[in-house]
Amino acid sequence: MTASDVERLARAGLSRLAEPGDETAWALVQVLGAVGALELIRSNRPAPRKLSFAVARQLAGLGEGPSSERPGAEGLLSDELAYHPELAGFMPHLGRGLQRWRPRVPDLNPERDLATVARFGGRLVIPGDDEWPERLRDLGPTEPLALWVRGAPSLSDAVRESVALVGSRHASAYGRALAADWAYGLVDRGYCVVSGGAYGIDAQAHVGALNVGESAGVPTVSFLAGGIDRFYPGGNTSLFDQILENGLIVAEAAPGCSPRKFRFLLRNRLIAASSRATVVIEAGWRSGALNTAHQAAELMRPVGAVPGSVFAATSAGCHRLLREACAICVTDISELVELAGPLTVTAPAAPAMLPFEAAAERRASDALLPADARLLDALPVRQYVDVTALQKSAGMSLTEVRSGLSRLELAELAARAGTGWRRTTRR
Amino acid sequence: MTASDVERLARAGLSRLAEPGDETAWALVQVLGAVGALELIRSNRPAPRKLSFAVARQLAGLGEGPSSERPGAEGLLSDELAYHPELAGFMPHLGRGLQRWRPRVPDLNPERDLATVARFGGRLVIPGDDEWPERLRDLGPTEPLALWVRGAPSLSDAVRESVALVGSRHASAYGRALAADWAYGLVDRGYCVVSGGAYGIDAQAHVGALNVGESAGVPTVSFLAGGIDRFYPGGNTSLFDQILENGLIVAEAAPGCSPRKFRFLLRNRLIAASSRATVVIEAGWRSGALNTAHQAAELMRPVGAVPGSVFAATSAGCHRLLREACAICVTDISELVELAGPLTVTAPAAPAMLPFEAAAERRASDALLPADARLLDALPVRQYVDVTALQKSAGMSLTEVRSGLSRLELAELAARAGTGWRRTTRR
Repeated sequence: MTASDVERLARAGLSRLAEPGDETAWALVQVLGAVGALELIRSNRPAPRKLSFAVARQLAGLGEGPSSERPGAEGLLSDELAYHPELAGFMPHLGRGLQRWRPRVPDLNPERDLATVARFGGRLVIPGDDEWPERLRDLGPTEPLALWVRGAPSLSDAVRESVALVGSRHASAYGRALAADWAYGLVDRGYCVVSGGAYGIDAQAHVGALNVGESAGVPTVSFLAGGIDRFYPGGNTSLFDQILENGLIVAEAAPGCSPRKFRFLLRNRLIAASSRATVVIEAGWRSGALNTAHQAAELMRPVGAVPGSVFAATSAGCHRLLREACAICVTDISELVELAGPLTVTAPAAPAMLPFEAAAERRASDALLPADARLLDALPVRQYVDVTALQKSAGMSLTEVRSGLSRLELAELAARAGTGWRRTTRR
Repeated sequence: MTASDVERLARAGLSRLAEPGDETAWALVQVLGAVGALELIRSNRPAPRKLSFAVARQLAGLGEGPSSERPGAEGLLSDELAYHPELAGFMPHLGRGLQRWRPRVPDLNPERDLATVARFGGRLVIPGDDEWPERLRDLGPTEPLALWVRGAPSLSDAVRESVALVGSRHASAYGRALAADWAYGLVDRGYCVVSGGAYGIDAQAHVGALNVGESAGVPTVSFLAGGIDRFYPGGNTSLFDQILENGLIVAEAAPGCSPRKFRFLLRNRLIAASSRATVVIEAGWRSGALNTAHQAAELMRPVGAVPGSVFAATSAGCHRLLREACAICVTDISELVELAGPLTVTAPAAPAMLPFEAAAERRASDALLPADARLLDALPVRQYVDVTALQKSAGMSLTEVRSGLSRLELAELAARAGTGWRRTTRR
């Protein structure tokens, strides 16, 4: 058994004992390593004060303490507590953590969990692995201890150019169509679509991504709230099977875990953290998708929200994000791509992007100087007027009128006949 | 003739000679007063260098120069030009202004204009009048020299609590319904609706405001781009007649002036400047309503935009404002009122405002501590479980489970039978 295998086995065990996002477990692993952490939890020993202190330092964001390794450390601990009074609040955390984790020790069998997942063609990915996504480090103390992954591609490669498309389960036809269309458009341009596998917007995003077919990259990644051996919701089972053909299914919770409400919220942080940008297609006022958006915003990731009718309850959450200035308004695929930013590696056969402003219709009169626009305004279409009349009517000087008319003539916006001028019908 | 009448007559004349928003005319009036300015324009004298300099100082935002009144001023002017090189660019402005204004002098007859407007029951309102709106001062050098007004109420009283509702002429049923509904809601709450009298959104806003009927305040004010004796567009003539019953019709352009394109843009600044807030209900990508919104934003007035379907061309301009972070997303009347701010004078019979968050449905479980929410999550609904099972399943310590259960029981979210616990079905 290699060192890495020992580490992986220990993290498999910790993934079973600690709930997703357990910051104390993360802190304990920072101090003792995964193997040492698991050993302590299994041992039934009380938490030594020195260790509680080191964990508290991690939780307070103070990093490794210089004092804990020195002789006579107990006295130094008291000194540091006086110096960093906020540490006192974190001191009981390790003890409480042990109380949370130890009831699950009797059921612990990480070898069995790894074997179960291997039977499904899955694996446990841990920090330090090549396929561990860099972006997850931004989560700090809620960075997962490990991720259970099914599907062939490398997880880090898959999410490198990913955009999260999320939204309500109770989606309207409008939101469902947009989710599928834009997911297709993203994958077609070389991005990967990350979502949560739920009914409604999530499912449509996965479906749209898969519709691209023979894609060069990984079309889609689904982060589940329960174990990767339990497809939830069951009605999306065939969708999950399709995702596994070219994409990935990922979970933080150990195999067999049921998807509970708080696990959904913690799962959302993985969707937000692993993606370059997060876009909420449709969301009710209380939708969980808003939680994903807020987590993305906290991680300083670009967040988008799609507007809709003010009468649609399914868009109320999106409008809330826009009002909170948490999200950018996104109305088409080019704005979505602008939000996500350009691909860092060139995608094969990516269609040329139209710039944002290309959507605007352009007219010859747009490029005019303000004075010329005003002169043009004063020019009649149906009859010719002379320069003096024009000068009065436009309220401009003779010089301005003359030079303006010659510019308008060049632009084919004004035409002359003798001493008279009129506007051309060309716009 | 009182001094004020002389001033009013001079400003009536200037309003005929200079186009709306002519900064040089404004600067000349700052230096010579309206009477002196009109006299100079009528005189056919060339612009004295000292006067060009004083006008340039005004245009450069330097105010009145100390040097211009002193003996030997010519030498001092050269010194100041060296000190403020930006003044040189403004030096020719007065000369050019005279060239613009003088061709219209032969047709000038301010007594006739005032008489024409008086026949319509109108008047000329000038700065210094009680009914001159304070907010227009924010326009600086584009503050109008005077405004032609029809209707009985005081202009300043009318716009004190006003909200501008603007949008496209080519409006959809969605935008038209919103404009009328929200205008009604605003007037019902004691606000006044300002708009531009155009077809589409503007007209619906005026109509909705008038629908309130016997209102204590002024329901609506319409700013026209042409003269107040020319209702434009003609199809809204009966609407304008209704507006005149309790509201106001206002124009900067002199009587008889036609509504040209650039006058619309300059009219928009008056809508933006006179209102507390400006909301774009619907606007295409190139709509003039976007110009009003941008002018309001430049004046630091709150700007709102109403979202709509991403497929609706009539909402593209609103989404553009949201993307530019120029506007706040507004989806109902309470958000509109929040944007405008509370009334400064108490309106009679104003309905109690619901706070913004009242729209959110509330549940007993919302107020829970995170740990209790997690415990509730782990509680089954259909069967009773004991504390030990619950402890494992929730991943919490015994103490946490026990104290959490007693809190959930108090909140009637958990029920016990013997040593077992389950979730209540009440939410």
